[in-house]
Amino acid sequence: MNSKENIKKIIIKKPLTLDCGKTINNYPLAYETYGKLNEKKDNAILAFHALSGDQFVSGTNPITNKNGWWSYAVGPNKAIDTNKFFVICANVIGGCMGSYGPSSIDPTTGKIIGTNFPVITINDMVKAQYNLLEFFKIDKLFSVTGGSMGGMQVLQFVANYPNKTKTAIPIACTASHSAQNIALNELGRQAIMADQNWDKGNYFNTSSSPDKGLAVARMAAHITYLSKKSLEDKFGRKLQERGNLKFSFDADFQIESYLRHQGNAFVDRFDANTYLYITRAMDYFDLIKQYNGNLSNAFNNSKTKFFIISFTSDWLYPSSENKEIVIALNASGADVGFIEITSDKGHDSFLLDIPDFLKSVKNFLEINY
Amino acid sequence: MNSKENIKKIIIKKPLTLDCGKTINNYPLAYETYGKLNEKKDNAILAFHALSGDQFVSGTNPITNKNGWWSYAVGPNKAIDTNKFFVICANVIGGCMGSYGPSSIDPTTGKIIGTNFPVITINDMVKAQYNLLEFFKIDKLFSVTGGSMGGMQVLQFVANYPNKTKTAIPIACTASHSAQNIALNELGRQAIMADQNWDKGNYFNTSSSPDKGLAVARMAAHITYLSKKSLEDKFGRKLQERGNLKFSFDADFQIESYLRHQGNAFVDRFDANTYLYITRAMDYFDLIKQYNGNLSNAFNNSKTKFFIISFTSDWLYPSSENKEIVIALNASGADVGFIEITSDKGHDSFLLDIPDFLKSVKNFLEINY
Repeated sequence: MNSKENIKKIIIKKPLTLDCGKTINNYPLAYETYGKLNEKKDNAILAFHALSGDQFVSGTNPITNKNGWWSYAVGPNKAIDTNKFFVICANVIGGCMGSYGPSSIDPTTGKIIGTNFPVITINDMVKAQYNLLEFFKIDKLFSVTGGSMGGMQVLQFVANYPNKTKTAIPIACTASHSAQNIALNELGRQAIMADQNWDKGNYFNTSSSPDKGLAVARMAAHITYLSKKSLEDKFGRKLQERGNLKFSFDADFQIESYLRHQGNAFVDRFDANTYLYITRAMDYFDLIKQYNGNLSNAFNNSKTKFFIISFTSDWLYPSSENKEIVIALNASGADVGFIEITSDKGHDSFLLDIPDFLKSVKNFLEINY
Repeated sequence: MNSKENIKKIIIKKPLTLDCGKTINNYPLAYETYGKLNEKKDNAILAFHALSGDQFVSGTNPITNKNGWWSYAVGPNKAIDTNKFFVICANVIGGCMGSYGPSSIDPTTGKIIGTNFPVITINDMVKAQYNLLEFFKIDKLFSVTGGSMGGMQVLQFVANYPNKTKTAIPIACTASHSAQNIALNELGRQAIMADQNWDKGNYFNTSSSPDKGLAVARMAAHITYLSKKSLEDKFGRKLQERGNLKFSFDADFQIESYLRHQGNAFVDRFDANTYLYITRAMDYFDLIKQYNGNLSNAFNNSKTKFFIISFTSDWLYPSSENKEIVIALNASGADVGFIEITSDKGHDSFLLDIPDFLKSVKNFLEINY
């Protein structure tokens, strides 16, 4: 892990009244860009990241030294071709990669905010990022896109700003977080809060942090990102560097070793309180309720052209929930395309090298540009 | 919770060499019976319990004061009619309801065994329970049955003792624990072991126990027992005793409150180390590997008549895995019936009042008696 000192940020001076009623201003929004904004400023794509993502979409993430989360999709000649398009991505508020979040320092006290940070929503995240348009002097985006929680932000963006993007590509998402997904997020939160080191979110004041709880939360989430078949194909019952069962609680199976690694690696790059806040924002997301039970009303005033993408083996945000968005868009008279990509890789498919998926995104963007 | 003093037990004197290589003897097996063994001793059904079950199948569990885990299925005139059949159920070894397990006291040291308890297998559990036949002087059972881990024991029982039961009803189970299921069990174990109070399994020596970790493990498991649809139908996004979101980490949604309750209630009746041992036994279960990659060899010598039952919405032990057992039984020339019951209730269906399921069990038992 490298220092976060050189992360690019803008300070948003304009006050933002959050859905909880509190107002924030003079808060940092960390961002990254890829490609060049053209003279007409009509080639900008705002990408929204998912729960565990950040602004480092492509190339090497300078903090983690790993590939950006959407390296398969974003780059020169890739699906989102940075030779043509100017891609902007910001760390969501509530995040832990430089934007205003629970691990930020409160200037009035000089202390880390922790759980004094307000509970935020997807709407709050989107409103904060809307300031990027003014910052880059972009009147209208060419596209907004993102998968999972990123897709929820896409939907919220168009609902809030019906004429501020030409196209929109929500991927593997939902218009309303399901009971099962709330349950899974609550499981992660309870794992973190069960860790004595969490200390009601005040672990910054101590030498310890709730690493074990956060690792368990990540393991739980990671299982849901993969399909039963992908786990079977990749791991099955293969043993971890041993010929036989050891009759112990060590990681006998490769899947156990893999999960432990995923949990431990996550702790190095992620803040436990941010995990609580972002999962809460996802659970609160209900665009149907925001529009009084009729999702199509969210898009009534929009001329945005939509392209919805889901994956066959995604059981977290299944095709059925993505299709509900398509139905609502159709009912609102919107221009909407939909594709269900055949993939065994589960919810994680949107992050992976799935040729049909990447080709679909590329074609949609280039035909509409 | 009432005292466990009056729990019925037999002491198994005969040595049992476990799959790990260790031998145990003079160990307790706690059991319960329902109905009467007839003179011919041909009406006995051995029921095997699942991960969180125990010997109290029907009526009021005298320890928890709640209904026995299979109260819908077992009782006078019920699917497993105790007016006709004599139902025996024992707490598995490794359990915490009176049978030999990690919360037992080691007579040689006078201390609770904890993680000095050997890692056991489904095969070990079944071999221990086989002693019940001798105890009740039963030459041949009428049936063996159970759901989930209980179903695994059914399969192992027939593989081990091909002519010791007339019929067998494995329900919602598998012949080989999948990678996804190993992952989910590992998640539960990690949640327990992440709890500082677990103290490497030695919490019996302190005033605290890993209640929070065990509660998280239970929440994780509970989500997997229900289908996405059953969660949506029962809870959806309904709020818990409030009109609006509270913008906090309290249980805003009913599903959150429900899960917290499930976690906390479980801690009162279950031992964390037992949770580790029993999930390990499930993960180790691979009847296919035991029979060198050919499951039908497990049943080649058996005259037992099988009836396999799965549930449409069970994603933990899906119909596909149950059908693999049917295919193997067919290949071995066994007498086998199979029904996939339509149910929205997920894996938990086998514990619930699903009329088609209960009727199927009743018909199979009575036609073959």
